[in-house]
Amino acid sequence: MNILFVMYDQLRFDYLSCAGHPHLQTPNFDRVAAMGVRFTNAYVQSPICGASRMSFYTGRYCASHGAQWNGFPLRVGEMTLGDHLRPLGMGCHLIGKTHMKADAAGMARLGLSPDSVICARQAECGFDPWVRDDGLWGQGPDGFYDDRRSPYNEYLKSRGYASDNPWADFANAGVDADGDIASGWMFDNADKPANIAEPDSETPWLTRRAIDFVDQADAPWLAHLSYIKPHWPYIVPAPYHAMYGPRHVPPANRHPVERRDPHPVYGAYMAGRVARAFQRDDVRAKVIPAYMGLVKQCDDQLGVLLDHLETTGRMADTMIVLTSDHGDYLGDHWLGEKDLFHEPSVKIPLIVYDPRPQADATRGTTCDALVEAIDLAPTFVEAAGGTVPDHILEGRSLLPWLHGETPDWRDFVVSEYDYSATPHCETLGLAPRDARLFMVFDGRFKLIHAEGGFRPMLFDLETDPREFHDLAKSGGHAAEIARLYEMLARWGRRLAQRVTRSDAEIVAGRGRSARKGILPFLVDGTEVPADLTARYRGKAPVRPDEPD
Amino acid sequence: MNILFVMYDQLRFDYLSCAGHPHLQTPNFDRVAAMGVRFTNAYVQSPICGASRMSFYTGRYCASHGAQWNGFPLRVGEMTLGDHLRPLGMGCHLIGKTHMKADAAGMARLGLSPDSVICARQAECGFDPWVRDDGLWGQGPDGFYDDRRSPYNEYLKSRGYASDNPWADFANAGVDADGDIASGWMFDNADKPANIAEPDSETPWLTRRAIDFVDQADAPWLAHLSYIKPHWPYIVPAPYHAMYGPRHVPPANRHPVERRDPHPVYGAYMAGRVARAFQRDDVRAKVIPAYMGLVKQCDDQLGVLLDHLETTGRMADTMIVLTSDHGDYLGDHWLGEKDLFHEPSVKIPLIVYDPRPQADATRGTTCDALVEAIDLAPTFVEAAGGTVPDHILEGRSLLPWLHGETPDWRDFVVSEYDYSATPHCETLGLAPRDARLFMVFDGRFKLIHAEGGFRPMLFDLETDPREFHDLAKSGGHAAEIARLYEMLARWGRRLAQRVTRSDAEIVAGRGRSARKGILPFLVDGTEVPADLTARYRGKAPVRPDEPD
Repeated sequence: MNILFVMYDQLRFDYLSCAGHPHLQTPNFDRVAAMGVRFTNAYVQSPICGASRMSFYTGRYCASHGAQWNGFPLRVGEMTLGDHLRPLGMGCHLIGKTHMKADAAGMARLGLSPDSVICARQAECGFDPWVRDDGLWGQGPDGFYDDRRSPYNEYLKSRGYASDNPWADFANAGVDADGDIASGWMFDNADKPANIAEPDSETPWLTRRAIDFVDQADAPWLAHLSYIKPHWPYIVPAPYHAMYGPRHVPPANRHPVERRDPHPVYGAYMAGRVARAFQRDDVRAKVIPAYMGLVKQCDDQLGVLLDHLETTGRMADTMIVLTSDHGDYLGDHWLGEKDLFHEPSVKIPLIVYDPRPQADATRGTTCDALVEAIDLAPTFVEAAGGTVPDHILEGRSLLPWLHGETPDWRDFVVSEYDYSATPHCETLGLAPRDARLFMVFDGRFKLIHAEGGFRPMLFDLETDPREFHDLAKSGGHAAEIARLYEMLARWGRRLAQRVTRSDAEIVAGRGRSARKGILPFLVDGTEVPADLTARYRGKAPVRPDEPD
Repeated sequence: MNILFVMYDQLRFDYLSCAGHPHLQTPNFDRVAAMGVRFTNAYVQSPICGASRMSFYTGRYCASHGAQWNGFPLRVGEMTLGDHLRPLGMGCHLIGKTHMKADAAGMARLGLSPDSVICARQAECGFDPWVRDDGLWGQGPDGFYDDRRSPYNEYLKSRGYASDNPWADFANAGVDADGDIASGWMFDNADKPANIAEPDSETPWLTRRAIDFVDQADAPWLAHLSYIKPHWPYIVPAPYHAMYGPRHVPPANRHPVERRDPHPVYGAYMAGRVARAFQRDDVRAKVIPAYMGLVKQCDDQLGVLLDHLETTGRMADTMIVLTSDHGDYLGDHWLGEKDLFHEPSVKIPLIVYDPRPQADATRGTTCDALVEAIDLAPTFVEAAGGTVPDHILEGRSLLPWLHGETPDWRDFVVSEYDYSATPHCETLGLAPRDARLFMVFDGRFKLIHAEGGFRPMLFDLETDPREFHDLAKSGGHAAEIARLYEMLARWGRRLAQRVTRSDAEIVAGRGRSARKGILPFLVDGTEVPADLTARYRGKAPVRPDEPD
């Protein structure tokens, strides 16, 4: 079996028709959902791209892998999907984005040769890059945000898009009435079509690269097809720019009570530039239709890919996973972007299709178990025929759910957010190590703990599914808060770094030192079998003459 | 300045005359204490050799470095003293024991060449080995416990000790009345002299190797002089075997109340073979005098070394640290060995001499701050002129204390114990991941948390300095227990793995992406300085003809 692990960037869990969106039709997502299981309570380990992805790729919490913000390198030696899958005979390939930053200092310290395959994989999150393109070719006074080569920009140039950065000038910009660039960075331009032929835009381009991959790949393979969209810049080519308009924009899920005496960290975010932009209805009216167009384009391209899998027979032997690295507030809770722990940010779409007959019983169903992003890595290991190394991978395989079983399962999920790199850390007067949030959610109550001496936040999603009422504001609910803090404490004591010895190895190793002559705490030797002490019995050897 | 970092193995904090031992005179330890500061509340990160040492060498808690038991490899890439000191121009050398197990699988995964210097350092805990000898050359039906070469055994053979394992047959064995080997593994033989000329025994041999090192070393250097003694086998050559006798053995610090309804983990340890041996007064009467003889020999050899440093001028430019990796119950609390968290096990001797004038004010004093073993690594970095990388090292430099300052300091220490590899894990019916204990000690109250669903243990060292009364037995003291659990929870959320970015780098990096053209959440671009948006303005480039 192969695994097609598709990630969209910043795709909200509820912007799919199978998840109930009132206006957006996503028949191809729905098609996979009809063939597989849609997980309705799937959460990321961090609502920020890089940290979240490192958790997907390592199968470990952010506090375990340490790459807690975009651009914080993943420490050398931290095992990723490829390290787990290749020994099982499964290749591990990248088509698109990882947001991985290599630990150049660590690799240099270990003397890893930069041109070796091992080093290339260390630098690419363990993947063999079929296409590596992180999708953000921003360029400013200090140069490119991403200083690697851009296969997508190379493609555009080869197609005649005349610019040193066609990503910026064509794919992510329109043209205004004066013939000037209307950059997709500015929300004012979100309703314009991107100045690019639709087939040349990012999502179709990457889909074709994926089809190229599938057509030549040696099975079994895992391909991580990782789209930059519907991530900002919010601009989409025709005809998608015109498919949705202000009438398709749901009202913002926000309430005045949220702005009254908010938690200081939430308050700082609501006061930030991102939030202020998304608090404007005119911004939402322009941006959300563009976002929906980007999702619609993703869905159409998913259809192209699914058709190709059908035609080539790959649908019968390929597991398909559709997910995202986090959501997008889009103005809900007076916020934009992701970052905090309300559902639009921390909850993700997760649809898994397993082609094998064992999964027939669950096709087209949903599963409301508390799922974490780190569950995919063990799912893949098990799908590849391996035993999950649970001393390294902190998630749990989803295969039992896919196969109609009801496994013992976690009673809470944890997500983390490290905002030390943001201006909010400074605004709040925090040391970088204190700019950290932890979410604990038990399926009903959601506690957010903030380092730095702040009170927690608490939401009851049963009585307040829209998450307006921070119950910790009033100082009440001590018992619930204590209960969730106890869960967080339990999580804090988890076994996360004993990665060089499995439980099975530990059990098998017990008693071995005695068989290698380590015999402390024997009074006279009769306490153990005679063969263990045989080495230490018999005539004493003769001592040499005294040294000078 | 150089650093002579001397570690004794299994040396109790109170078996020194400067620490108040009633019978054992250790004038050379006392001499260093008179020149430096003796820390009276120093605790190891784990009361087991390997895990404790990995914390000394990495400056990190056991749950952070992951090598939580003897022989669990230290994961490749985990930084050790040498990684921190060499870039500061200080060599980092090993003379003796580390109890390090290399992460061979991790090194192979990264393609590290086994014969490279980097690989050798990875395999030796970051040290350049002047002498590498872990000191336990046990041999049994399955071969040697330690399959590396033994410089000490090679030395003994070169001296004419005729045996394939003279460590076992001479250095750690006596001769009985029949001329048979009287192995030091059996406590019955602890009162016999080891069948070796005293200068050929382990402690003087290693001391001479240290002197050889000092005489040729290029300054500045750190030398980790790491003795196996007074660790078992408890047997010592003449004249030390006869210096102490039963009359010098203090009564065991134990109380019948400890055996009444003990905590299940403590109960399992009290019922084990080790404990049962040390519960016998005849065992204590033989073993403790041998242990004292071993300590006395260590002290004499320390004198030899100190005299050499004086003679060669090194005393004036060498920091000296004397410590141990954990203690030894010796029958206290009905236990032998180390492992649990009573003071004789988890507290260590720690004496630090700083030759510089800044330390003159504190010479000969004691310091009762709550010190952890992980404090030495940052102390060494600072002594070598570096800035402590506090995103990696979890301890705190002791230099302020040595220089007469009173720094802000921690309010509790944490120690951990992973007993998954022991038979007690099985006895207690635990999964390997649940065989873990955590100690939190705030200077008065000591809480021990046991994973696996057990109640905690609690001791009040102010009202019960001998640690007989487990206050959690009765179910009371809820407030103290909750307070210490809150400390443990705080510790569990510590920032331990964000090792690839320092706080300073994080602060310096803020706002950089905007200068590299990442401009999300601008409505029209006026929100930021014009130079940031310049790239995205001007005439739109001409789009090529539509593709086919």
